[in-house]
Amino acid sequence: MVHRILAAVAASCLLASTPLAAQGIDRATIMKDPKVFGLFVTLKMRPDYATLPAAKRRAGAVSEIQAVIAKHRDNVLADFFLTRGLDTESDILVRVHAYDLVKAQNFVIDLRATTLGMHADVEQKFVGMTNALIYAHKSPGLTDSLKATTYSDPAPRFVVMIPIKKSAEWWTLPHDQRLKLIEEHTILTLGFLATIKRKLYHSTGLDDVDFMTCFEFADVSAFHELSKVLMAVGENRYHVQWGNPTLIGRIDSLENVLTAVAGG
Amino acid sequence: MVHRILAAVAASCLLASTPLAAQGIDRATIMKDPKVFGLFVTLKMRPDYATLPAAKRRAGAVSEIQAVIAKHRDNVLADFFLTRGLDTESDILVRVHAYDLVKAQNFVIDLRATTLGMHADVEQKFVGMTNALIYAHKSPGLTDSLKATTYSDPAPRFVVMIPIKKSAEWWTLPHDQRLKLIEEHTILTLGFLATIKRKLYHSTGLDDVDFMTCFEFADVSAFHELSKVLMAVGENRYHVQWGNPTLIGRIDSLENVLTAVAGG
Amino acid sequence: MVHRILAAVAASCLLASTPLAAQGIDRATIMKDPKVFGLFVTLKMRPDYATLPAAKRRAGAVSEIQAVIAKHRDNVLADFFLTRGLDTESDILVRVHAYDLVKAQNFVIDLRATTLGMHADVEQKFVGMTNALIYAHKSPGLTDSLKATTYSDPAPRFVVMIPIKKSAEWWTLPHDQRLKLIEEHTILTLGFLATIKRKLYHSTGLDDVDFMTCFEFADVSAFHELSKVLMAVGENRYHVQWGNPTLIGRIDSLENVLTAVAGG
Amino acid sequence: MVHRILAAVAASCLLASTPLAAQGIDRATIMKDPKVFGLFVTLKMRPDYATLPAAKRRAGAVSEIQAVIAKHRDNVLADFFLTRGLDTESDILVRVHAYDLVKAQNFVIDLRATTLGMHADVEQKFVGMTNALIYAHKSPGLTDSLKATTYSDPAPRFVVMIPIKKSAEWWTLPHDQRLKLIEEHTILTLGFLATIKRKLYHSTGLDDVDFMTCFEFADVSAFHELSKVLMAVGENRYHVQWGNPTLIGRIDSLENVLTAVAGG
Amino acid sequence: MVHRILAAVAASCLLASTPLAAQGIDRATIMKDPKVFGLFVTLKMRPDYATLPAAKRRAGAVSEIQAVIAKHRDNVLADFFLTRGLDTESDILVRVHAYDLVKAQNFVIDLRATTLGMHADVEQKFVGMTNALIYAHKSPGLTDSLKATTYSDPAPRFVVMIPIKKSAEWWTLPHDQRLKLIEEHTILTLGFLATIKRKLYHSTGLDDVDFMTCFEFADVSAFHELSKVLMAVGENRYHVQWGNPTLIGRIDSLENVLTAVAGG
Repeated sequence: MVHRILAAVAASCLLASTPLAAQGIDRATIMKDPKVFGLFVTLKMRPDYATLPAAKRRAGAVSEIQAVIAKHRDNVLADFFLTRGLDTESDILVRVHAYDLVKAQNFVIDLRATTLGMHADVEQKFVGMTNALIYAHKSPGLTDSLKATTYSDPAPRFVVMIPIKKSAEWWTLPHDQRLKLIEEHTILTLGFLATIKRKLYHSTGLDDVDFMTCFEFADVSAFHELSKVLMAVGENRYHVQWGNPTLIGRIDSLENVLTAVAGG
Repeated sequence: MVHRILAAVAASCLLASTPLAAQGIDRATIMKDPKVFGLFVTLKMRPDYATLPAAKRRAGAVSEIQAVIAKHRDNVLADFFLTRGLDTESDILVRVHAYDLVKAQNFVIDLRATTLGMHADVEQKFVGMTNALIYAHKSPGLTDSLKATTYSDPAPRFVVMIPIKKSAEWWTLPHDQRLKLIEEHTILTLGFLATIKRKLYHSTGLDDVDFMTCFEFADVSAFHELSKVLMAVGENRYHVQWGNPTLIGRIDSLENVLTAVAGG
Repeated sequence: MVHRILAAVAASCLLASTPLAAQGIDRATIMKDPKVFGLFVTLKMRPDYATLPAAKRRAGAVSEIQAVIAKHRDNVLADFFLTRGLDTESDILVRVHAYDLVKAQNFVIDLRATTLGMHADVEQKFVGMTNALIYAHKSPGLTDSLKATTYSDPAPRFVVMIPIKKSAEWWTLPHDQRLKLIEEHTILTLGFLATIKRKLYHSTGLDDVDFMTCFEFADVSAFHELSKVLMAVGENRYHVQWGNPTLIGRIDSLENVLTAVAGG
Repeated sequence: MVHRILAAVAASCLLASTPLAAQGIDRATIMKDPKVFGLFVTLKMRPDYATLPAAKRRAGAVSEIQAVIAKHRDNVLADFFLTRGLDTESDILVRVHAYDLVKAQNFVIDLRATTLGMHADVEQKFVGMTNALIYAHKSPGLTDSLKATTYSDPAPRFVVMIPIKKSAEWWTLPHDQRLKLIEEHTILTLGFLATIKRKLYHSTGLDDVDFMTCFEFADVSAFHELSKVLMAVGENRYHVQWGNPTLIGRIDSLENVLTAVAGG
Repeated sequence: MVHRILAAVAASCLLASTPLAAQGIDRATIMKDPKVFGLFVTLKMRPDYATLPAAKRRAGAVSEIQAVIAKHRDNVLADFFLTRGLDTESDILVRVHAYDLVKAQNFVIDLRATTLGMHADVEQKFVGMTNALIYAHKSPGLTDSLKATTYSDPAPRFVVMIPIKKSAEWWTLPHDQRLKLIEEHTILTLGFLATIKRKLYHSTGLDDVDFMTCFEFADVSAFHELSKVLMAVGENRYHVQWGNPTLIGRIDSLENVLTAVAGG
């Protein structure tokens, strides 16, 4: 079943990403559970941030944000990725997972009340949820293949988040045609399971896109090859948005991320 | 008749949403009346708002806005939703209902003269009116179905407003073809009447969209499922705009909404 | 002849709109003359306007702008409409009529040198001219119908300006096919002559649109109905832009318009 | 030959435009030479310009810019047009002609270092070159017609610059089909040679458009009529951009242009 | 083989561009290696940069940036091009080459912490990598032709970077059809190898475009002619983005580039 395929993809993905210390919410569990909200926001520092005293921008920013993370540790899992230097619209990509969308919203509200947040603009936002079952069918072999391979490369260094919107033509295709196209793209990407983690979020109605796909990897070339495979599948003809933006960030410790944006 | 269908949808919708205290205008009445204007505006706090004294941003903001609401209570019903954390372009979504568009406009003008309003940009605006009868025909069974089911979930926690623009192809379709497509989408969404409130506004000529649909719900998954059903109906092929923006906010008390945006 | 139709529409329109005191230029004459330039600009107050002393923003703004109007009274007819609360990009819509485009430009330049103008951004601009004869043909009956009905509703309360751009397909249609489509839309809108004033401007080459249509009315529902009729005519298939923006403002006295934007 | 046609158009155009005093570079020569770069930039004054002392904004701005013009007089021909009041994105349109693109760039760099330039944003830019021969063929009669008529109206009062981008369908048409379409549009516009000056620049690869057409005229109605003729030719079906922006400015002395933008 | 063709193009290109002093990383080597990341960012000075003391803007800026270049000399090759006067969105185009994307990102982060960087906005960004082999096939004759000709014009004076996105139709074409189209465009451009250097980067998945092509040349007319040839090949029908932006800058010394942007 495709929903099993999607669930299997979700379960096998992103488990190794632990830039933050242990939290009240269990990373391994929330990263594979269904009905989990994923809220992605990007922060872009305003110029006046660079004029604050250095101590406030560096150690102060870290401790304030660690306090926000600690406050919400029972409700929210938050990851901070460094986009400065790789993006024009942001310096930091924040990825928030929560079982309740209100809890994820509350985390971002508190983040914006920190010194760093008060000197940043939220330039981009995407929201979705995991594992809303779309396609129920029989593909046990494919599901087994998905489960059989796990990520075995060095620890991921990069995250890429790609929002996707499908056309009306896609949504009004007969169910089995959509299924066949999904299976085609799934089979062609099986070879990348060992080098690229993926996680899918469903956004229809909650955002102006239909899906968000979050990738983590160490091998940039492999990710580029996977992306070309995804361009060449028939399903690609039904995309009215793929990326725009393609959010790419570095996986690093919270301290390193905040230090990197403190400089100007 | 579809106009009865639409009126029935309007009548059964959004009645339970009472984040504000009783006003001079009757909520239950204005929410089901035809010829009511709906004016949606979003406010985005500018950075300098966070530099005001905390008392002014918190208690002061609440009392000033309560005074504006009280001043207009005989003319306008106003709801404030919290979008901060879920939107990049706004912190607050304000929904204004009035029997006279000038009265709705006056409310927003006074809102902008408050401390909060003077430190906010109005980033988005949508205007429409209820119940302009479009399709007159016979569908008594469908109308009865619409009336037979009322919202029975816990109190809604989220509001979503989706602006919609139809193509020239839609508007130049023969009347009965449009009718059939509307009936198709109405029938497929009957199953969501108990979990999702809907309210329709007509905007052609008054705005750059044709319709605004306002949803309220507690169950985010159910709303996501409804949204996918709406993507898959044939009518979707005639949409040149669906969302963009999809405005999503939290239903909360005026005090909580204003406190949440006071922080940074 | 369609050009007579268009001229008749122009002659019967917008004559009753007199928010300003008598001027050197005759309103009734310029509003029905051909070869008159229409220049529409919107002003959006910047936040620092609200920090000026109240006297400067209120009485001062009014007297400065009255002086500009008086200075140009022999060359320009200017109307100020209140868009605050109904638009995100503007607070005031200024409509300037002149027989010489340079005179209209000069008025806007002087307007921008007032205190209000110096604290405003000009966010939107549209320019066109009346009555450039496009389609010469014989439709005396239609022309008579246009002349037979005049606006008879209460004084208009709202103005709507809609810019329109036609496709290359439209412009390369044979002349008689364009004529037939224009007649179709004209006939279908005859019933709205008593409730909605219209005035047409031709913009091809002078702006990035082909036409501007300016409507004035008291009955918002009637205008919404007219707009839907215009959506359903075959000519609508040839529009690559209709609105975007749809500028909607309130007709009010200069004093009231300026007072409304003085508050924040 | 079309290239002769285009060269003839270039040679007969814009010669009378002399808002500036005599310069080292010869206006009549550079305005008809091939391989001349045309660099168009628009300046939009920032609000803080209006807060400078009036003397600095008026006489000071004029003398500083005259000094820049004098410094570059052997390399660059520069014209300043007044767009304030007719444009939202600019106050001044600067047109620079030079035989070396680096020289044109240097002029703009020095312009931006003046008081006026330091208080302005460069909002729009277009670059192209004259007379790169595209279509070589035999149309001696057409070329003669182009040379036979010269501008005979009163001195031009307005400049309009329209950027144009052609579709991939255009560029992959067989050569003779493109030629036939160009001849069609050239013949239909012959009647406007006496009232409207035109000059063509080629931009493919140097900018995101393929052509820039610069018009100068006194008779706005005639230009509007010409524009409609250009909309109705078959070639128009191959335009993916025509205008957007349509830059329209007034031809006036440097002193008058700078004085007009000094006010607010 | 096309990949050899592409590799040959890469190897023969941009070798002569040495605006900076010798660095730890070898220019000739990194400019022809595969798996090299190319990161392009543009900097736009904010108005407040012009208010800094002149010494800080001129000599200070140069020495600070030279220090950043020196710090990263073992990891990054950086070139600075002058776009001021030729672009609205930028003053400087920075091109960074590195074997590790993190190293390129680090360079930009340090650049933004300099005085110049702290007063600049990063308005545009493109990332790609060299020589990811796309099309493996046999075209030894074509490859030989590519290798047989090297750049022989005077030192390049201009750089142009053009981002390219292909349609879903392109990516889902059969392999041999894509190959044939690539060969067609390669053959038609062979004649420009002596006057225009080219270098190709692959971006699919790493950015919202598929390719970046970087050109360097002294002869602007030749580049314009090459651009028209590229417009006329069949492959052009599969481009959904070509340019937008077309980044054009001057090749000059770091000192000259920074001095040019110090003025206002």
